[in-house]
Amino acid sequence: MSGAQMQREMAEQPAVLQRIAARAPRVRDEVRALLPDRLDGIVFIGRGSSDNAAVLGRYAAEIAAGRPAGLAAPSLYTRYAASVDFSGYLAVGLSQSGATPEIIDTCKQLRASGARVIAITNDDESALAGACDLALSTDAGKEIAVPATKTVTAEMALVLVVATALGDGLAGAEALDSLPGAVDTVLGDESSPAALAASWAHYDRLLVTARGLQYAAALETALKIKETCRVLAEGISIADLLHGPIAAVDAGLPVLTMDGGDPTADDSRLLADRLAELDAPAATCSPDASSTLPMPEGLHESLYSIVATVRGQQLAYHLSIARGLDPDRPIGLTKVTPTN
Amino acid sequence: MSGAQMQREMAEQPAVLQRIAARAPRVRDEVRALLPDRLDGIVFIGRGSSDNAAVLGRYAAEIAAGRPAGLAAPSLYTRYAASVDFSGYLAVGLSQSGATPEIIDTCKQLRASGARVIAITNDDESALAGACDLALSTDAGKEIAVPATKTVTAEMALVLVVATALGDGLAGAEALDSLPGAVDTVLGDESSPAALAASWAHYDRLLVTARGLQYAAALETALKIKETCRVLAEGISIADLLHGPIAAVDAGLPVLTMDGGDPTADDSRLLADRLAELDAPAATCSPDASSTLPMPEGLHESLYSIVATVRGQQLAYHLSIARGLDPDRPIGLTKVTPTN
Repeated sequence: MSGAQMQREMAEQPAVLQRIAARAPRVRDEVRALLPDRLDGIVFIGRGSSDNAAVLGRYAAEIAAGRPAGLAAPSLYTRYAASVDFSGYLAVGLSQSGATPEIIDTCKQLRASGARVIAITNDDESALAGACDLALSTDAGKEIAVPATKTVTAEMALVLVVATALGDGLAGAEALDSLPGAVDTVLGDESSPAALAASWAHYDRLLVTARGLQYAAALETALKIKETCRVLAEGISIADLLHGPIAAVDAGLPVLTMDGGDPTADDSRLLADRLAELDAPAATCSPDASSTLPMPEGLHESLYSIVATVRGQQLAYHLSIARGLDPDRPIGLTKVTPTN
Repeated sequence: MSGAQMQREMAEQPAVLQRIAARAPRVRDEVRALLPDRLDGIVFIGRGSSDNAAVLGRYAAEIAAGRPAGLAAPSLYTRYAASVDFSGYLAVGLSQSGATPEIIDTCKQLRASGARVIAITNDDESALAGACDLALSTDAGKEIAVPATKTVTAEMALVLVVATALGDGLAGAEALDSLPGAVDTVLGDESSPAALAASWAHYDRLLVTARGLQYAAALETALKIKETCRVLAEGISIADLLHGPIAAVDAGLPVLTMDGGDPTADDSRLLADRLAELDAPAATCSPDASSTLPMPEGLHESLYSIVATVRGQQLAYHLSIARGLDPDRPIGLTKVTPTN
């Protein structure tokens, strides 16, 4: 069956997350041992799905550490030969393969410029792991399907582990052992994403939106749909959408809104009202039981970013199949992308 | 005629840019006087078009200053009540109206947390100007059309002024007096954007792509098209596009690629080859005379981000008219957006 590999790897996620939860306390100690005396800032570096995990890291690390965090722009180092002093910085480079040249080059340059650099990768023997001060393995097992799934949620869990090592500003996010069961519950419900996919299969464009800690899940869901469904799916923050692009929304542009309850549930409700006025096809992914893609209640809000990402994988999978495609083999993509 | 106000304001851009170029040396002195002894990092804050100017600022400031720069995530302060130490940081808040509540609130919080804060706004008397250490006026005159044009290129010029005050890593970017003539030349050629708009008028989705310093122009062009054309236009970096979303590109998804020559021209060429293989409708905006939307030769690469933004305004304008819309009055938008 087409998509069988992607489904198999999605199904491994509870076990992968359980392993990360089990070693999280030790990983936090390793991260703390690496920190500079005074932390000037934190940067995350990734491309594709790893960049979406980086977005989650950027939000979580700033809240947890109480120091500014951001995303590196690789082209500054690979194209502009920028000379930047990274002393006092913690950098976190993410790559599923550990083999993306621009991520390796950027991490090397940041380290040579003074940053303490952590690699998060699924290959402990990779060039990226070897180029950094500390390598954290996603330990997800080999990933074969082109659309990354279990390595992405593993990266997301690890950035939360790194973030919660930096300070206690995000209390609750360390409860990773609540994740495997929640992801298992979601994976046990194929009917919700299959139904949404069936009703949206004829659209060749859509929006996925969220705010705050769920924004990464919206970006990742949009990316997964672009990669597997031949649909132009844009991930956009609710605030950005309402600020201007809402003018493009009408009955022909469906919108999926993700939230993890407070503190962004009001943003989702405000947007839902606007979408209803515009007669736009709308769906939601939230811990509300009446949601289109419901998630189990009771998790810390930061952890919903990972559960919502799994919901997004399910939607991409079913939408791909509903559109007559093979999600395991997106047209024109390979597993390691040689961007540099 | 519909769109007359937007066109009038676009036509004022050479004069607005000339005024900024004339006072740039004084502005640089004011910025330098504000800097902390040791600069830990730089953050830019904006929403909508101002966020796109912030993207340009983030790239330019990091190259120029040789210290890491990034974009603030307003929801961390307005939704998550994050307590973040911004001592040692320079923050630059951008808002055309100076009245967007979340930008004002974020700037106030960053300042109270130790950042030196610069406001860039078109209203010197605005709440944003009053809330910061230094207010820089875009001095663009009143902007009436809902799609921001002259205030955006003015913000972009001012972030280059701020960036070049921070260090000499972006030599050449201070030559702002070459901008008014180049923008005037581009505004004198309506036929190129009108022809592209005519050939793409039937698409309801498209991509605008670029890398490095031109990325901001791609984001702004996509935003302007979303706001005025009822088209889902996504702005995306060439590296991100090639890393995965290229799987969604086919003969039904046009792609506009922007570059300012080296050092990203090779990225554009690589992408052009892939688009040709995919039979995707492709257009370019570059200093190459054979480009779909040509720009005058001889500018510093950083300045092309502003000229390309003007090309994008022209395309949005003509595409809006070609699709039977009034670019002055996008459906459902107002001039000041009360996101908070």
